Amino acid sequence: MADAGCHVTVWGRSAEVVRQIADQHRNEAYLPGIDLPASVTATTDAHEAIAQARIVAVAVPSQVARDTLTPLRGALRDDAVVVSLMKGVELGTDRRMSEVVAQTLDLPDERVAVVSGPNLAREIARHQPTATVVASTSPDTAAFVARAVASSYFRPYTNPDVVGVELCGAVKNVIALAVGISQGRGLGYNTMATVITRGLVEITRLGLALGAAPETFPGLAGMGDLMATCASPDSRNHTLGGHIGRGMGLDEAIAATGGTAEAVKTCRPVLELARRLGIEMPITEAVVRVLYEGLPVDQLAPMLLSRPRRSEVVTG
Amino acid sequence: MADAGCHVTVWGRSAEVVRQIADQHRNEAYLPGIDLPASVTATTDAHEAIAQARIVAVAVPSQVARDTLTPLRGALRDDAVVVSLMKGVELGTDRRMSEVVAQTLDLPDERVAVVSGPNLAREIARHQPTATVVASTSPDTAAFVARAVASSYFRPYTNPDVVGVELCGAVKNVIALAVGISQGRGLGYNTMATVITRGLVEITRLGLALGAAPETFPGLAGMGDLMATCASPDSRNHTLGGHIGRGMGLDEAIAATGGTAEAVKTCRPVLELARRLGIEMPITEAVVRVLYEGLPVDQLAPMLLSRPRRSEVVTG
Repeated sequence: MADAGCHVTVWGRSAEVVRQIADQHRNEAYLPGIDLPASVTATTDAHEAIAQARIVAVAVPSQVARDTLTPLRGALRDDAVVVSLMKGVELGTDRRMSEVVAQTLDLPDERVAVVSGPNLAREIARHQPTATVVASTSPDTAAFVARAVASSYFRPYTNPDVVGVELCGAVKNVIALAVGISQGRGLGYNTMATVITRGLVEITRLGLALGAAPETFPGLAGMGDLMATCASPDSRNHTLGGHIGRGMGLDEAIAATGGTAEAVKTCRPVLELARRLGIEMPITEAVVRVLYEGLPVDQLAPMLLSRPRRSEVVTG
Repeated sequence: MADAGCHVTVWGRSAEVVRQIADQHRNEAYLPGIDLPASVTATTDAHEAIAQARIVAVAVPSQVARDTLTPLRGALRDDAVVVSLMKGVELGTDRRMSEVVAQTLDLPDERVAVVSGPNLAREIARHQPTATVVASTSPDTAAFVARAVASSYFRPYTNPDVVGVELCGAVKNVIALAVGISQGRGLGYNTMATVITRGLVEITRLGLALGAAPETFPGLAGMGDLMATCASPDSRNHTLGGHIGRGMGLDEAIAATGGTAEAVKTCRPVLELARRLGIEMPITEAVVRVLYEGLPVDQLAPMLLSRPRRSEVVTG
């Protein structure tokens, strides 16, 4: 299978990063040591970047998505498809990122897709074998995006369940933070595997209540991404959890991580959403209690295990 | 929750190991540095060990289960329950371990249970928080065993799906070997997460064809155990795969691992079973081809990713 060889124009805010990508085909700040393909160029003008694009991929922090996209309404080709790579839920509205995309750009759902999976950027840039999920309510849109990104080392699978794929991407960071805490306490692989497995159970419970398909959660965007995030030392959520597990307070842990992590913002809205729906999320609840309510970290693991013995099955 | 505090009699073949457990409450060969509870004793006489036991846990290598158990037929209490901790499928008969137990001891299914999960022994012995699955066709038997083993650091979940739980335990080692190969080639977390996730998909396909319940596979005995096995440096299957990935032949890798690994024996019978049932297991097939048919290890990852693009869903 040959690489797809699309022409790609990157939009960036930093003139220096944009110049380096356009002139030297390098991005030393984010992908040090990697030669980007010669067909990748860059601009600081978002309208120029999207004017001719058939596929527009959006990868800004979730809380600035609305302000970034609103000025671009009406500037896309009539046949353009927008792909969200963003993970998170909009604070205040509880909206998923694909909903923010469709609303701000005034697009029907079938022109929006989501790509998510165990996709650490540095490994893909080194052409390591990787699989991902392309989700859209439109099978044609999902297949179109999948064809465009497929290569010898990058394999897309399609999935119609946009809700499930986006929810996995948003909540996995909370579970990765819990895994970081347990590893910071010196606990091993049994605990890690248990927190990840039971974490996926509570993501699944929430997802089913929101209309997601059960098959999404054990797939690449659910279990796959959760596993890569919890195993990689690159995850800020995992790293921040480790600092908390070793005894730091939240502010101290944020400073030691070199900035905050998505889960610090996401855990409370997710728990509130779960409570409104009557869904139990004991790991998310434990993370909220440790970060914001002074629960000692030593109480986290016993809290997860001291609940009544019961059947394992999610919907049982 | 207090620890259960059962009286435990260990049966062992080595007089020296048995004496150390009985006299010093230590097992330096397998659990160095761990003080066993004072209520744990040991004997080299299997009949003595089981004569008064309400629960008999069997943990011998799968290929000697039949010869070990057959002499014990008729020696159990009438109300005894037998718990299999064994992972694997009997060569020649393709029987699961609980089937071998029931057949050799002439017990009805409702007196047999299986315990499986992310349960690395050294971590449990250090009282690290761990969860597990107790499977039996009898809910009363599962609940009885769960009550007996529950403690502040060990949480059992019950599951009626014996077939699924046992199949996960047997096939996970093949997937762990594939993960070891990819890590031996220097590949990172994207590939690891993809191989584990797609590995669980093929275990699920085989399990559904054999009548297992779909909910078992993303649970602790499926995904949980697979993750702990693939993450832990203690797994022989994972270690042996790493040697293969770095370029050793099978015999050399077995020598470097200090003995063979379960997956080396299991992969071919599993693939044959899948072929008889018309089930695709591309990762298992790739492992068989690398170990036994001279497929170069560099071809393993591309082989897994070069199949046609398709929907992610297992049964789709």
